[in-house]
Amino acid sequence: MTKFYNHKGNLDLEIGGVIKNPVIAYHTYGELSPSCDNVIWVCHALTANSDVADWFPHTVEEGACLDPSKYFIICANILGSPYGTTSPLHENPDTGKPYYSEFPHVTIRDMVKAHILLADHLGIDKVKALVGCSVGGFQAIEWAVMQPERFERMILCATDAKATPWTIALDETQRMAIKADKTYGEPRPDAGMEGLAAARAIGLISYRGPSGYNLTQKDPDDIPADALRRAMTYQRHQGDKLCRRYNAYSYMAILDAFDTHDVGRGRGGVDNVLKGLDIPTLVVGLTTDIVFPPEDMQQLAAALPRGRYAQISSPYGHDGFLIESDQLNALFIPFIEEDLA
Amino acid sequence: MTKFYNHKGNLDLEIGGVIKNPVIAYHTYGELSPSCDNVIWVCHALTANSDVADWFPHTVEEGACLDPSKYFIICANILGSPYGTTSPLHENPDTGKPYYSEFPHVTIRDMVKAHILLADHLGIDKVKALVGCSVGGFQAIEWAVMQPERFERMILCATDAKATPWTIALDETQRMAIKADKTYGEPRPDAGMEGLAAARAIGLISYRGPSGYNLTQKDPDDIPADALRRAMTYQRHQGDKLCRRYNAYSYMAILDAFDTHDVGRGRGGVDNVLKGLDIPTLVVGLTTDIVFPPEDMQQLAAALPRGRYAQISSPYGHDGFLIESDQLNALFIPFIEEDLA
Repeated sequence: MTKFYNHKGNLDLEIGGVIKNPVIAYHTYGELSPSCDNVIWVCHALTANSDVADWFPHTVEEGACLDPSKYFIICANILGSPYGTTSPLHENPDTGKPYYSEFPHVTIRDMVKAHILLADHLGIDKVKALVGCSVGGFQAIEWAVMQPERFERMILCATDAKATPWTIALDETQRMAIKADKTYGEPRPDAGMEGLAAARAIGLISYRGPSGYNLTQKDPDDIPADALRRAMTYQRHQGDKLCRRYNAYSYMAILDAFDTHDVGRGRGGVDNVLKGLDIPTLVVGLTTDIVFPPEDMQQLAAALPRGRYAQISSPYGHDGFLIESDQLNALFIPFIEEDLA
Repeated sequence: MTKFYNHKGNLDLEIGGVIKNPVIAYHTYGELSPSCDNVIWVCHALTANSDVADWFPHTVEEGACLDPSKYFIICANILGSPYGTTSPLHENPDTGKPYYSEFPHVTIRDMVKAHILLADHLGIDKVKALVGCSVGGFQAIEWAVMQPERFERMILCATDAKATPWTIALDETQRMAIKADKTYGEPRPDAGMEGLAAARAIGLISYRGPSGYNLTQKDPDDIPADALRRAMTYQRHQGDKLCRRYNAYSYMAILDAFDTHDVGRGRGGVDNVLKGLDIPTLVVGLTTDIVFPPEDMQQLAAALPRGRYAQISSPYGHDGFLIESDQLNALFIPFIEEDLA
């Protein structure tokens, strides 16, 4: 069940402006131990929500890495997302109308500030493990840099310490597709839907990559020249599916935030920040991931004083982190249970 | 200088319909030898044209693989392209108006049939080397299958014998972006331009890949959170650049044709066709190509009875074939000059 924290006060934004009285939607699973030593905080990716059990298969269950019989698991919905936290569809208190394209430009640091408001509100001073996959990892590593004392250990899977030119190009291309839909900008929640579908299809390309498509979308051998191909219907289906649960304004706000990710900004650069981040960290790469290639994950692990690298073998590209739950649990569980004393 | 062949008669199309009196634009370089044994036929890719010297740097020059002092080089503009051959901007003889979205669905085999009309018209019975990179290779291998006796040898670089689910997904995503622009379909040459720009940006993602972007689009280290990133302006610039020289109808016609590529259709499947293709063939892969990964090129070479594999080392992804001219010449020249007797 989604819970809500209605913060009374302003969330000052990094680039400028404020969000007045932000709402933060979140889920928890399991029970907080009396000594408060069993918290796992999960940061969610892109179009997911705070219901980790919904989008992260076979992780929130007994015997899995996020075992609710052992741990108190928390996930907060990110700023801008349409799953309960303040978003472009919320009322702008200055105008009394939904923000839509007037939603302020938020950064990854702003998303983390919202997580901090919630953690403080819940009295969670110490987190046993901070977990972030994909752009969930953007929030995780940024938060660890902002409040290293809060975290005992961290898992970063298929992510980075800074948005790369490559991921920025992927995001910009999605923005171009959304803006090519001239209905984007109209003050209604379903504006820009065809652009959003195309943007999602662009995302999917990067999430699945060559091996993912060639494995799962193969056509019958002697398909006629004018027949619809499976990969065509798959792209359209994935686009339509997102349009039924998302909106173009939220998507745009979140893409914009991702491109600001840079733990080194104003702190002497990424290398400098990483070498000072003294938290035991498991960095996990996926063999066929073209968004955050495994070589980049190895470099990230090597740049962290207490980083160690592990790899998931998967033909599903970046999406492997949502599919290879057996391998993922096999890596995450011993790291979470390890005695770090 | 572009030359034109005005064919008198119908070009019957594979899926149905005809193109009446097709025009075929082409370029030639060098002189045909008296024994007609020095012809190199180049098939061009995607948005290129018949002017090989324009789009294929350092190949059409003395000492290079397409040396006009030695060879008679021919390249024909593909059906649907806006560079002279019959395209959606040409007048539909049935209506007296431009085709636009009424342009018939052409296939790779139809493109090759147009090449054959030109080759027959020019009296080119024997081609010393047939060269195709990327979707130029789609036409080359299809032509070699249709008329194996015409070709002495073939070079296939960063291409395939059949469109893969992955390349079809890339194309479908581009179609989604074009159609998200509601002006697409309006009967004017500049319809769907914002969609076309987004489609081009999608293409670029696949052509350059992670290593290409991270190498060439790096931002200054301490860039402000709200600054435009180089990768953003690059994507927009590439989109705008294509819009100045192309049109959405041609682009769509060509994407549709690519997805039909399958040398095995109606011929007992790809494997069956390849094992019967007895032409010495150099198959070239590029180390960081994510469109036609080097593993796929190796498989293609292995499937051809007289296929051999060579690799170009490049950080520029698929676009490496337009950039690594030194490596490309070093591989192509000895293969073209080799005595096959």
